[in-house]
Amino acid sequence: MKIAIDAMGGDYAPMEIVKGVEIARDRYPDIEFLLFGTSEQVKPLVKDWSHITLIPTTEVIEMGDEPVKAMRRKKDSSMVRAANAVKAGEADALFSAGNTGALLSSAIFLIGRIKGVDRPALATALPSFAGENDQFVFMDLGANAESKASHLYQYGILGSFYASHVLGINDARVRLLNNGAEEDKGDEVHKIAHQLMKNSQSFNFLGNVEARELLEGTADVVVADGFSGNAALKATEGTALMMLKQIKQAIMQTGLRGKMGGLLLKPAFKDIQKKLDYNEAGGAVILGVNAPVVKTHGSAKANAVANTMGQIKKMIEKNLVPDIRTYIADHKDELQAAKNEL
Amino acid sequence: MKIAIDAMGGDYAPMEIVKGVEIARDRYPDIEFLLFGTSEQVKPLVKDWSHITLIPTTEVIEMGDEPVKAMRRKKDSSMVRAANAVKAGEADALFSAGNTGALLSSAIFLIGRIKGVDRPALATALPSFAGENDQFVFMDLGANAESKASHLYQYGILGSFYASHVLGINDARVRLLNNGAEEDKGDEVHKIAHQLMKNSQSFNFLGNVEARELLEGTADVVVADGFSGNAALKATEGTALMMLKQIKQAIMQTGLRGKMGGLLLKPAFKDIQKKLDYNEAGGAVILGVNAPVVKTHGSAKANAVANTMGQIKKMIEKNLVPDIRTYIADHKDELQAAKNEL
Repeated sequence: MKIAIDAMGGDYAPMEIVKGVEIARDRYPDIEFLLFGTSEQVKPLVKDWSHITLIPTTEVIEMGDEPVKAMRRKKDSSMVRAANAVKAGEADALFSAGNTGALLSSAIFLIGRIKGVDRPALATALPSFAGENDQFVFMDLGANAESKASHLYQYGILGSFYASHVLGINDARVRLLNNGAEEDKGDEVHKIAHQLMKNSQSFNFLGNVEARELLEGTADVVVADGFSGNAALKATEGTALMMLKQIKQAIMQTGLRGKMGGLLLKPAFKDIQKKLDYNEAGGAVILGVNAPVVKTHGSAKANAVANTMGQIKKMIEKNLVPDIRTYIADHKDELQAAKNEL
Repeated sequence: MKIAIDAMGGDYAPMEIVKGVEIARDRYPDIEFLLFGTSEQVKPLVKDWSHITLIPTTEVIEMGDEPVKAMRRKKDSSMVRAANAVKAGEADALFSAGNTGALLSSAIFLIGRIKGVDRPALATALPSFAGENDQFVFMDLGANAESKASHLYQYGILGSFYASHVLGINDARVRLLNNGAEEDKGDEVHKIAHQLMKNSQSFNFLGNVEARELLEGTADVVVADGFSGNAALKATEGTALMMLKQIKQAIMQTGLRGKMGGLLLKPAFKDIQKKLDYNEAGGAVILGVNAPVVKTHGSAKANAVANTMGQIKKMIEKNLVPDIRTYIADHKDELQAAKNEL
């Protein structure tokens, strides 16, 4: 299998991207890596060229670039060239740690939507701290600021496929992020989405979930509109980071007693931090397009990059995209009915 | 001043409500408390009747009741009677730990909106862990599942008044909760709201804030639509609780070493927990109605109830509602212009 790598995207690109690719190459001997990047910058970084090919590009999409414009204008950028390689069938998947919006645009406009999927969306696996499984799929993380009920309904299908194919969770328990447990909660979009999901034969819908229970493992797939999904994800991340910081600060301020306590608890804190650091395990996936497209955190270092290659490998091996495509094609009447019900 | 108390609302009502009122009575000698509740249940609980009057009621709005229906049908409920007392001028403010939706309905339909305020909203003070002030106002917490841009704009005004009058923060820094820092981020509602707020003379708007920075003290008032505000608040609460639980669990699991560390760090953890436990300091306020209406957490115990009385006292003494009313009346052209711009 071949993965097209945007070697220039991310805070530590191309250095950490190349390092990560080399770790992944040593770890997964069946992957061929196509590195798209500025020759003078990337070439000196590669230590061993086996299973790695450099495709020289001359432009770079910056973090601050306006996504659609950048994708359209910077035709020789590492990201656009990598996306076009996937489109042309020269690679099976696309990896980037760069501009999320531009990657979304490249995925949707270059690689293309799966026929029948109205809005591809961003999904990630978050840790569950209770319940039967260790992780759950959370989507949409913000690909779409405005959502229709039928989009949320489709996320239920996409998320369930990701759960079964990548997380190994069959018959995933799907819930809708809403501001109350009862089915009449929320705005019109969420009320209608709840009804569509409740009546769906495509996945196992268990009702609403409130953001307070997000990490408690009551769902394997949590479907959210991109706006509040983004807010809930960021509030979760921000609070977790703030708590760890506060605890460290409190330890430092309570003198010798605190420092001793902190030292004794170091292994315990490490465990929690590791579980929380879901960015280390892989990236956010753009579900609903014609190939696996994965966005790693902008600040990803080599190890996170390498782990993301493992995640992509799984998506390819398990036939995630072809299986979604087949399912959607076989159930187009059901999907159309969901849209008509609005 | 007189506060109308719904003695029957809340998980520990009427016991903890009455206890809390008695603590508050001893603490604030200038408050008269009107206890609305079922006579046989409330009477035996009151130890000292000074500054406390019982107004017997025969019905109770339950937590599971449909809000508007309950408010309309249970005319002799403790909550509705208490709200009507405020409406009739027999009390200056309304307190309840009961059904939030029913309290919102009672506040809006019985006590009434301030003329010119389109959508009263729920606000609370949350802790800031950095920045110049200890707390910030967060609203709307979910009074309105659907919001227009002009509603968000009005929240900027209401929140700034709460910051100055109750938190003592003048020229409050107002930010809009959005899924990015740039002004073109978000859905249509948030894009337009950003422009309205940016051009407002009524408050000091500093731009967007992402949920990740919510607790970092970069704003004194964070304005959110009720749906994503609710999601961000609950995600924050859920994550904080989960972190504390995980740490406790990790301490227990790491044997003697962990237990010793935990013991040494107990005072440090207590400090953090105290700062996080904002529910203990007061309740959520319904801003935009004709009197202070405060909803304490359903699980509030006596001490939280008593603290909430202090919060209400401040709102009355500082003329919060009259000052909002005057400001809105004096600036009705500006508010109308904001609505016309849509």
